[in-house]
Amino acid sequence: MEIIKECVTALQKVKEQNPLVHNITNYVTVNDCANVILAIGGSPIMADDINDVEDMVSIASCLVINMGTLNERTVASMIKAGKKANKLHKPVVFDPVGVGAGPYRNKTAEKLLKEIEFAVIRGNMSEVKFLSGLAVQTKGVDSVADEAGGIEAAKSLAADMKCVAAVTGKTDIITDGQRVCLIDNGHPILPGITGTGCMATALVGTFCGAVRDYFLAATTGVMSMGLAGELAERTLKGNEGIGTFRMRLFDSIYRLDGETMMKEGRIRIE
Amino acid sequence: MEIIKECVTALQKVKEQNPLVHNITNYVTVNDCANVILAIGGSPIMADDINDVEDMVSIASCLVINMGTLNERTVASMIKAGKKANKLHKPVVFDPVGVGAGPYRNKTAEKLLKEIEFAVIRGNMSEVKFLSGLAVQTKGVDSVADEAGGIEAAKSLAADMKCVAAVTGKTDIITDGQRVCLIDNGHPILPGITGTGCMATALVGTFCGAVRDYFLAATTGVMSMGLAGELAERTLKGNEGIGTFRMRLFDSIYRLDGETMMKEGRIRIE
Amino acid sequence: MEIIKECVTALQKVKEQNPLVHNITNYVTVNDCANVILAIGGSPIMADDINDVEDMVSIASCLVINMGTLNERTVASMIKAGKKANKLHKPVVFDPVGVGAGPYRNKTAEKLLKEIEFAVIRGNMSEVKFLSGLAVQTKGVDSVADEAGGIEAAKSLAADMKCVAAVTGKTDIITDGQRVCLIDNGHPILPGITGTGCMATALVGTFCGAVRDYFLAATTGVMSMGLAGELAERTLKGNEGIGTFRMRLFDSIYRLDGETMMKEGRIRIE
Repeated sequence: MEIIKECVTALQKVKEQNPLVHNITNYVTVNDCANVILAIGGSPIMADDINDVEDMVSIASCLVINMGTLNERTVASMIKAGKKANKLHKPVVFDPVGVGAGPYRNKTAEKLLKEIEFAVIRGNMSEVKFLSGLAVQTKGVDSVADEAGGIEAAKSLAADMKCVAAVTGKTDIITDGQRVCLIDNGHPILPGITGTGCMATALVGTFCGAVRDYFLAATTGVMSMGLAGELAERTLKGNEGIGTFRMRLFDSIYRLDGETMMKEGRIRIE
Repeated sequence: MEIIKECVTALQKVKEQNPLVHNITNYVTVNDCANVILAIGGSPIMADDINDVEDMVSIASCLVINMGTLNERTVASMIKAGKKANKLHKPVVFDPVGVGAGPYRNKTAEKLLKEIEFAVIRGNMSEVKFLSGLAVQTKGVDSVADEAGGIEAAKSLAADMKCVAAVTGKTDIITDGQRVCLIDNGHPILPGITGTGCMATALVGTFCGAVRDYFLAATTGVMSMGLAGELAERTLKGNEGIGTFRMRLFDSIYRLDGETMMKEGRIRIE
Repeated sequence: MEIIKECVTALQKVKEQNPLVHNITNYVTVNDCANVILAIGGSPIMADDINDVEDMVSIASCLVINMGTLNERTVASMIKAGKKANKLHKPVVFDPVGVGAGPYRNKTAEKLLKEIEFAVIRGNMSEVKFLSGLAVQTKGVDSVADEAGGIEAAKSLAADMKCVAAVTGKTDIITDGQRVCLIDNGHPILPGITGTGCMATALVGTFCGAVRDYFLAATTGVMSMGLAGELAERTLKGNEGIGTFRMRLFDSIYRLDGETMMKEGRIRIE
């Protein structure tokens, strides 16, 4: 399959270029995000002070904004950093953690979508459905959020926001509004640890820092996470559980290579 | 023993109900707390912005307040969230990390105890002795803090605050001021990693989110932590140490079942 | 070798005295720092509120300041805590994470160096070269930052700041401006996980809390980290990678003893 070969090339580029990825993220999974970026071949910067973020964006290849434990201080930094990245034509990846769960998160996501041009938005289905409704709502339509079809919600969000939408779930959906790619990698144990969503976003950011095709970057990042989850789960034996799984997940990301991607990647172009 | 059977039922309820547990906690062990809640069968929310916490409390089954790395911003959020939880009749669990170590922590704990009605307070002996003194002090007596008897301090705190007091140590003490339950599970290696206290509190919060008897919830949470520590330590061999222990602790929480509780739980009703 | 015997004694002292180490640090690696302090035999305190830090410094044996995710709130706390530690004649260790990467970090480092007397500054080569230039610059010379010789930069920083400079890299350099000690322990896999620099600093802080010779404390802390990295890497087999390495690193710190130091420590006095 053609797309998988491109994913393999994307992985090679990350290993060669070692992209610097600036993250303004939550304090729950920040360590996991830094370690997953290192494991795949990038270099993380975690900095969120408003006086610091523009300088960090200037040296980074990509900016990742994750609103997991958002607060007024860091939201201001996100906006400043995002605008700077847009100005410098560097990709910005957005993880709208928990959008839909309450007005502060919703307003913040709306603000970020208005102020910053994103390369990729990565969320779960309910987050993307919510944002999709938001996006449409601003154009006077508000029906998409009620639709069952996740693909339609993702396509709508991608088209409205002129970005790539990446929805992770049982089957992951990646779309730029036109092309749609479905990924069947992953394992039900993955949501049993915190941070797998944030880590998928961090991986997407790392690939965006190395390849200019963000549809490909999102696909490779999301598939890498799912694939690593499968490989890690397969090693579990006896009384091993979620703690061992979590450790092996990092092993699997670290060991992930083109051969495994070719053999085990399950990507369909819709 | 009757109480252990009830603990087994409590565990079943957590697995069935998957309670949403909102944590306003410290940034040292926040990831461990989220993972331990997932491992036992709950779902964590970590959110601490004053604009966000009331909405998160509204969708959660329990609120956990941990003052480990307290600051003025998060203390304000704790109070707002705690009051909201009280209003909605949702249980609030308090971990007074480091109370007694300095005036800022002491004043904050006092303020939280005054403003919020707690279902459970979970601390180590020196923290509970300190709070017990505080509680009494406000009634003009200040002798309890000097007493050797931890059970008396815990009972006094529970009675004064009309809550359950859970004291973790070599022998754990759980009391609602009347009933006293002593737990002999645990292992000396547990305090060799950071966060085992915070994780015990997070487990108590998860059980409080699933069962209405907070004395039982505190007992089950604290026993689960001690038991998991024992089971994890037992697996160590050769050059394995604290890193492997920490990983296996999560495995053990994840694998914990009623059969193990029945067989290995060491609970005495005083 | 004489110095290694002294390192062994330093380790014994840490195990005996269990020094309390107060850290004002970043939220990326804070959990790792707490766990590494515990693993070597110390006790961590993580507290960064301006109302809290002086009290924590008062009970601690050492203060570690790490500016990884600095912000205005925590920088104010760092200065207050540092001044208090100086007043109480307690050692302060500084990790100038990312200095040189942008003006906010540079100004903050400069401010901290001006306001606080450090016992040890621990950084990588580019950070120490940058600070060395800073230090000299304030005396009207600005050439050191361009010099190839890391030893010269470290000696210059140590002499100017009247402290010990510890530079970690392929070969680690420890100097008090006069004495120079080179350490050849470590492994190229170490920078493959986040936080090994921060953890090295936390170990230096732990040793500073137990021995009054900060040159020895810095040497022992840095060598312990490198040695643990080697030992952990040696255990890896099959598909094990960075996740397993990270866990074993904590095992190795925890198991580190005088015999291993004597046998495997590679220290040269220049």
